[in-house]
Amino acid sequence: MENKLKDKHQPILDSAIRALHARTFFTHYPENPTPEIYGENADKEGRDKYKQHLNSQFKELLQQDSEAWVGQEESPYEQQALGVKYPFFSPDTLVARAGEAFHEWRRVKPADRAAILAESLERIRSRFFEIAYATMHTTGQAYLMSFQASGPHAADRALEAIAAGLEEQTRFPEATQWEKPMGKYNLKLNKSWKAVPKGVALVIGCATFPTWNTVPGMYASLVTGNPVIIKPHPKAVLPIAIVVAEVQKVLQENGLNPNICQLAVDADDHLITKDLAENPKVKLIDYTGGTEFGNYVESLPGKTVFTEKTGVNSIILDSVDDLDKVAQNLAFSVSLYSGQMCTAPQNFFVPEGGIKAGGETVPYEEVVQKLAGAVTGLVNNPKAGPHILGAIQNPATTARVKDAASIKGKELLGASDFSNPMFANARTCTPVMYEVDVSETENYSRELFGPIALVIKTKDTDQSIEIAKDMALRYGAISCGAYTTDPEVKEKIMDEMSLAGTPVSFNLTGGIYVNQNAGFSDFHVTGGNPAGNASFTNPEFVIKRFTWVGFREPVAG
Amino acid sequence: MENKLKDKHQPILDSAIRALHARTFFTHYPENPTPEIYGENADKEGRDKYKQHLNSQFKELLQQDSEAWVGQEESPYEQQALGVKYPFFSPDTLVARAGEAFHEWRRVKPADRAAILAESLERIRSRFFEIAYATMHTTGQAYLMSFQASGPHAADRALEAIAAGLEEQTRFPEATQWEKPMGKYNLKLNKSWKAVPKGVALVIGCATFPTWNTVPGMYASLVTGNPVIIKPHPKAVLPIAIVVAEVQKVLQENGLNPNICQLAVDADDHLITKDLAENPKVKLIDYTGGTEFGNYVESLPGKTVFTEKTGVNSIILDSVDDLDKVAQNLAFSVSLYSGQMCTAPQNFFVPEGGIKAGGETVPYEEVVQKLAGAVTGLVNNPKAGPHILGAIQNPATTARVKDAASIKGKELLGASDFSNPMFANARTCTPVMYEVDVSETENYSRELFGPIALVIKTKDTDQSIEIAKDMALRYGAISCGAYTTDPEVKEKIMDEMSLAGTPVSFNLTGGIYVNQNAGFSDFHVTGGNPAGNASFTNPEFVIKRFTWVGFREPVAG
Repeated sequence: MENKLKDKHQPILDSAIRALHARTFFTHYPENPTPEIYGENADKEGRDKYKQHLNSQFKELLQQDSEAWVGQEESPYEQQALGVKYPFFSPDTLVARAGEAFHEWRRVKPADRAAILAESLERIRSRFFEIAYATMHTTGQAYLMSFQASGPHAADRALEAIAAGLEEQTRFPEATQWEKPMGKYNLKLNKSWKAVPKGVALVIGCATFPTWNTVPGMYASLVTGNPVIIKPHPKAVLPIAIVVAEVQKVLQENGLNPNICQLAVDADDHLITKDLAENPKVKLIDYTGGTEFGNYVESLPGKTVFTEKTGVNSIILDSVDDLDKVAQNLAFSVSLYSGQMCTAPQNFFVPEGGIKAGGETVPYEEVVQKLAGAVTGLVNNPKAGPHILGAIQNPATTARVKDAASIKGKELLGASDFSNPMFANARTCTPVMYEVDVSETENYSRELFGPIALVIKTKDTDQSIEIAKDMALRYGAISCGAYTTDPEVKEKIMDEMSLAGTPVSFNLTGGIYVNQNAGFSDFHVTGGNPAGNASFTNPEFVIKRFTWVGFREPVAG
Repeated sequence: MENKLKDKHQPILDSAIRALHARTFFTHYPENPTPEIYGENADKEGRDKYKQHLNSQFKELLQQDSEAWVGQEESPYEQQALGVKYPFFSPDTLVARAGEAFHEWRRVKPADRAAILAESLERIRSRFFEIAYATMHTTGQAYLMSFQASGPHAADRALEAIAAGLEEQTRFPEATQWEKPMGKYNLKLNKSWKAVPKGVALVIGCATFPTWNTVPGMYASLVTGNPVIIKPHPKAVLPIAIVVAEVQKVLQENGLNPNICQLAVDADDHLITKDLAENPKVKLIDYTGGTEFGNYVESLPGKTVFTEKTGVNSIILDSVDDLDKVAQNLAFSVSLYSGQMCTAPQNFFVPEGGIKAGGETVPYEEVVQKLAGAVTGLVNNPKAGPHILGAIQNPATTARVKDAASIKGKELLGASDFSNPMFANARTCTPVMYEVDVSETENYSRELFGPIALVIKTKDTDQSIEIAKDMALRYGAISCGAYTTDPEVKEKIMDEMSLAGTPVSFNLTGGIYVNQNAGFSDFHVTGGNPAGNASFTNPEFVIKRFTWVGFREPVAG
């Protein structure tokens, strides 16, 4: 069975490894939810299956003897409980079961593990639409993003982690004969090496990207032989529960203990993350979420930790070809999923003397008006707005947007609700924009998660760069957008932002946005600033999950 | 100049990268100090040059404006001060100069950095004998080990680090065109990536292997673009001072700031390591030495740290072909440099029922007698003893050996001095051996640095394995030797010790010892237990020294 799986998946794993090295465009899971690709009834069937989960017990998991049934998800589109109940297990039970499963999983060869995991992605592919609706109604993402981010893009990132892990574990020979000339004779040793997994792994998910941000760490730990406990955010369980169920089924079909990959759901009256994270048997932790809890996870002794926390992302405006196109592109980036992306831009640095646009100087005020105008135009476009903005995952985000009015600065765009034609009760909020003084650092030196954009008037582009770099070094950054037609300024931005470990997208207009990161090509988070210590898929992301141990013995005779 | 250097060193760097992957035998620097290889007068010239350093100022460094001249080395062979004085610089000055040099060095391309560093090794090669005498008279190593460990073996490990760093930094393309089919058109982005060095690096050396344990971290940080401050142990400066001076000369010849690689010597009245380590501009630290200080270094926030601390190394005796040969091999391992190696064995586990030897059962007492007898025979052999044992680096080690008499157990070999025919005043000590009860865990659960061997009588081999694994997991281990002719026992030892992150050498007899690790083949320290978090040269050892940062921009037109 395993050999059949290996034969089936070897070609795609080989292609994925080559793609990781070339960093050119590569995808295995088509991102367009069209009937031609996914089947005539795939969308309807997915929606129906999603609806069947509502107000029911999720019984697909192969974890035995649950202690209770729990669940606290609610739809940001309907503002009512989903009613899905998941089996609850105490942290001690979860860790003990993972510890047992460890000894089974670590003995499976890396290539077999990779094949089993690649097979699980194929099974998950058949549930992309169901996962998409589950994602919509937990995160508030619009339909298309829900499909792409939780389905094909997540599966591509998982495949990327499998490929990287397989490559690193097979990079050195399993065994070799070492022969040292000693003058009169040759000293001969048989040597062999094992990539020894570190132990029980924990993946702590977030509420906004429940599969995309979970599967890289999950598959990276699994392919390197570590059993994984998936602890989703209590408000976004269903999308990743489906993923875990499919992994468990493939494990069982291959004669393996399904507890190699377990789902850990918080109790209704208490959270279990700290109990899991602090358990001495938990050796690896992947975490996506806020900075405060992320710093706590990073500080735990004796763990190998991978974090994606928060950052303050900047846009540096210096000079452009076509300001209208730039404003439209940035308006989209601010509005996409209502700014609830770790890559969404927040601070817009505009020089007080304005910017060059197609050779002409556009005054500062006009630049700001164009930006604000483009956001308003997008929000008010009924064909575009709701499909870009989606809904607000957490009521705290809506409150933060409304609170933004207390920022010391000039309101350029105020908060307002807008109605979603499909969901009358959706929790929505249009993006707000404030102009803040460059001297009021505290206004713009923290992440304001949600659709909140700040325009900061600087002395000149040099000051814009200096502050953007300083923010990234001190508070972290996951993306940076820069607009300049001057090669020297571009070089300076690349150099300064590289020292702050921040990737830069230059002069984006049209259908590509600073928020988007492509699997197999863009490293996601660099690990080089306080926004996180991990990077998908820098080889470090998989190498740190296992230990090379060598054995040697004289050749007999 | 740099292109000439690149052309000169590219072939050997390519070979080194291939060797690292194959893990077969490879060396670039011959380990035998013979006139045929190194020249007729190389040894004499090296000794003369070493003598010229005594009672003099070391003026080869290109670091300007020293604040004082300091030095506190003394020869374990002569028990008197070397009188070498080194320029002193305050930690703030050192870090500030490294910070300036950083911006020059990070702009040099990885391949050029690798060529410059490879050239520095060639220069160091011409001083192997001088370094050997400097090593003898700081560490107490015997002549041959001083030459091999501080000269060719260290240079090979440095070359290994250069090769690994070069490969990792050139593993992904510098730039590529990314083209995504969008249906009606293709989205095209120019992408490029930079391997961005982390910043100022610090390497903290130890007193016993002043170059071998320093150059891997030093060259790994340098090849990845980080300026390095080398802080040797105050009792073992000269060997690495010569290395640093040669690196500085090659940097200056290539128009670069010699402060890219600085020597930091402790003041005579205070140590400067903590001031350097805690400086927020220091981002990378390599450390070799005791566990307590190593744990402090690992706990420093905001640093990437690589440690090699201490461990409790075990020998598991189960069954052998020829017990005499085994005893001779182990006696050598215990005696080599008087047990002052991080890989030296300490705990010998022997089953109470004895062991099988060539099919016959040898009783426990006889096994122990053979081990003790082999050590005595080696020590009392005037042609071998002094050349294997060398001298004791630190008086505290002699005191520890004498203190071992207070161990609750039976003395098998007591402490005694022996005379070195060449150095009448040498600080020497023969190995001691004690039999301790398996229940007296505290006797054998800490590293007793120096020539101290403990024999622990176990119920059976299963208990031997269990305790050896437990010691490694709890207190760390860098090596393990095991003797068994039973394939099942061997498999069990491999499996259990691999879970403790400990490499195992099986059935060594003849001219290969558990203490020895080969560059390009054996990972040194695994990072998988408390003995240290680093491994030479697991790719992780170089990858963590830089950050991948990407840039992208739409293709014009």
